[in-house]
Amino acid sequence: MIYPTIPPFDVSSSSLARSRQDILTKPSGSLGLLEDLSIQLAGMTGKARPHFHRKGVIVMAADHGIVKEGVSAYPSEVTAQMVLNFLNNGAAVNVLARQAGAYVRVVDIGVSYDFHNIEGLLHRKIAFGTMNMLKGPAMTRAQAEDAIQVGIDIVRSEINNGLDLVAIGEMGIGNTTASSAITAVLTGLPVEQVTGRGTGIDDAGLRKKVKVIEEAIRINQPNPQDALDVLAKLGGLEIAGLAGVIFGAAAERVPIVVDGFISGVSALVAVELVPGVRPYLVASHQSVEIGHQAIWNKMGLHPLLDLGLRLGEGTGAVLAFNLVEAAARILDEMATFDEAGVSNKE
Amino acid sequence: MIYPTIPPFDVSSSSLARSRQDILTKPSGSLGLLEDLSIQLAGMTGKARPHFHRKGVIVMAADHGIVKEGVSAYPSEVTAQMVLNFLNNGAAVNVLARQAGAYVRVVDIGVSYDFHNIEGLLHRKIAFGTMNMLKGPAMTRAQAEDAIQVGIDIVRSEINNGLDLVAIGEMGIGNTTASSAITAVLTGLPVEQVTGRGTGIDDAGLRKKVKVIEEAIRINQPNPQDALDVLAKLGGLEIAGLAGVIFGAAAERVPIVVDGFISGVSALVAVELVPGVRPYLVASHQSVEIGHQAIWNKMGLHPLLDLGLRLGEGTGAVLAFNLVEAAARILDEMATFDEAGVSNKE
Repeated sequence: MIYPTIPPFDVSSSSLARSRQDILTKPSGSLGLLEDLSIQLAGMTGKARPHFHRKGVIVMAADHGIVKEGVSAYPSEVTAQMVLNFLNNGAAVNVLARQAGAYVRVVDIGVSYDFHNIEGLLHRKIAFGTMNMLKGPAMTRAQAEDAIQVGIDIVRSEINNGLDLVAIGEMGIGNTTASSAITAVLTGLPVEQVTGRGTGIDDAGLRKKVKVIEEAIRINQPNPQDALDVLAKLGGLEIAGLAGVIFGAAAERVPIVVDGFISGVSALVAVELVPGVRPYLVASHQSVEIGHQAIWNKMGLHPLLDLGLRLGEGTGAVLAFNLVEAAARILDEMATFDEAGVSNKE
Repeated sequence: MIYPTIPPFDVSSSSLARSRQDILTKPSGSLGLLEDLSIQLAGMTGKARPHFHRKGVIVMAADHGIVKEGVSAYPSEVTAQMVLNFLNNGAAVNVLARQAGAYVRVVDIGVSYDFHNIEGLLHRKIAFGTMNMLKGPAMTRAQAEDAIQVGIDIVRSEINNGLDLVAIGEMGIGNTTASSAITAVLTGLPVEQVTGRGTGIDDAGLRKKVKVIEEAIRINQPNPQDALDVLAKLGGLEIAGLAGVIFGAAAERVPIVVDGFISGVSALVAVELVPGVRPYLVASHQSVEIGHQAIWNKMGLHPLLDLGLRLGEGTGAVLAFNLVEAAARILDEMATFDEAGVSNKE
């Protein structure tokens, strides 16, 4: 598989942004993470005063063979039902995207349901869900690569239509199980330290989930040095697709706002495969899922929000659009000390 | 002084909101603090599905006699200069309010500068700054009461014009010194545990600031059981005015989004004087100023954001408008499991 070339982070734009932050009418540093974020956005976009005109969230949906083992509080059918809910604008991500002035693009990359040619959905199904990873690899390597390519193609097309700030989200009953498995292998942490309750299983369910993941890793023997092998064997078509979105967006200097645990895993896989995408990622929030922190730590990213979210869909990322735009607008629109005739520090 | 009557938090609206959160198409609780906040907003407004149509931030500006003791990194003139910057839409709060779709109301409640009848400013000056609290009380009790009344009157007038969500902010060189003094007395904590660097003093400046505050408390002997006495003696006309805004807004069931350390002190004073206002407060963020945490703890409030801010002006509160609206819109606009035909938890 040939990945897109990622341009280097633009240090000259980011240092122009840093200098400008120091002459705006506030004590330098007093806007904390907003200032840091604005400087990062400048380096990502290659613009000393970046603007964002068209924001969107790409939500990839897929099913998981592992759900047959009883690892989720909800049945697999909910994946397709929620896709329809997205198309009808009834889900949380629709509401939050509306408020953020962002659009929602929903992708069937592997739902175990035939949507025929229903309107409003991007039809890029690679399989009717992954295989059960307790019986062998969840995907073939070729399927994982195809899913990545879907993500690259979709975001390229959106960028051609003006998208300049993208959030990634997902829907897939069972996908915290796949995500915890991938996280355990890529971080080297014990499964139980990166496995949470997903949509809400009880203590017994959590113990079972941990055992299932441990068994899936034992059976598949993924190579931790080969993130594509890990992704294919333990994976998730939506996780692969979102990694593709990251490649395609970073290649065009479009910042990627990463959502919760599953989106975070797709980011971790993307960074393992192509380290150059790392500077284009914005960590939107800290999920309740315990594996999420391990992922941010592994990538050295610091989430903006900590609101006790555990929904996915891109909800936390879309909420963080507001902070991304706030950071850019502060940098661009505030008066300088000179312009405003305000005395600087004595 | 006669304070407005505060209606009780509406438990029936908040429990309707809670019930609705449980049937929306997401695992119950998966939107974390947004769900809790939506339930609180219902109880505040007395509406099971609250909407907000007109948001504003009231920024009170005043000067502080204590600045003569060299407790700030900036000269007193900056207060008036920043008021002009607010009127010209060049300050951080202007930028963030624009993004939030909120308006900014700037009040001269005690700036040490004659603005004549400049347009766009609410002229309610009670004094040209407070007195130096190392030489006696910063304000008389009557001045503190007058300032509170200014806040009540202003927010009432705004509410009559449709304001239904209010943020409080301030500008006043020296006002972290007043705020730390008030916090120390009302929380009973040692001065050094609630005193920070304000706009950016160095270690020597910080040691001096602590000593000045300790001395001001020793000289004025405020009565910790009488918050109005504490407010008057250790002062801040803007702090008193913002307490008034809280009284006036809570009386009309308008939620108050509290900003940083100084706004937090005004909230603490308001709660000490009229405990019934407490349920109408939303804690927007955790400031870098160390006294801020003590204030949230004392009131039992949990801030939504933690972005390393230390600017004031209402910036953090205006940023949090997005989360307040997100919470309300999630509650109101999401589809239920029945409406969307989505299977609930097994």
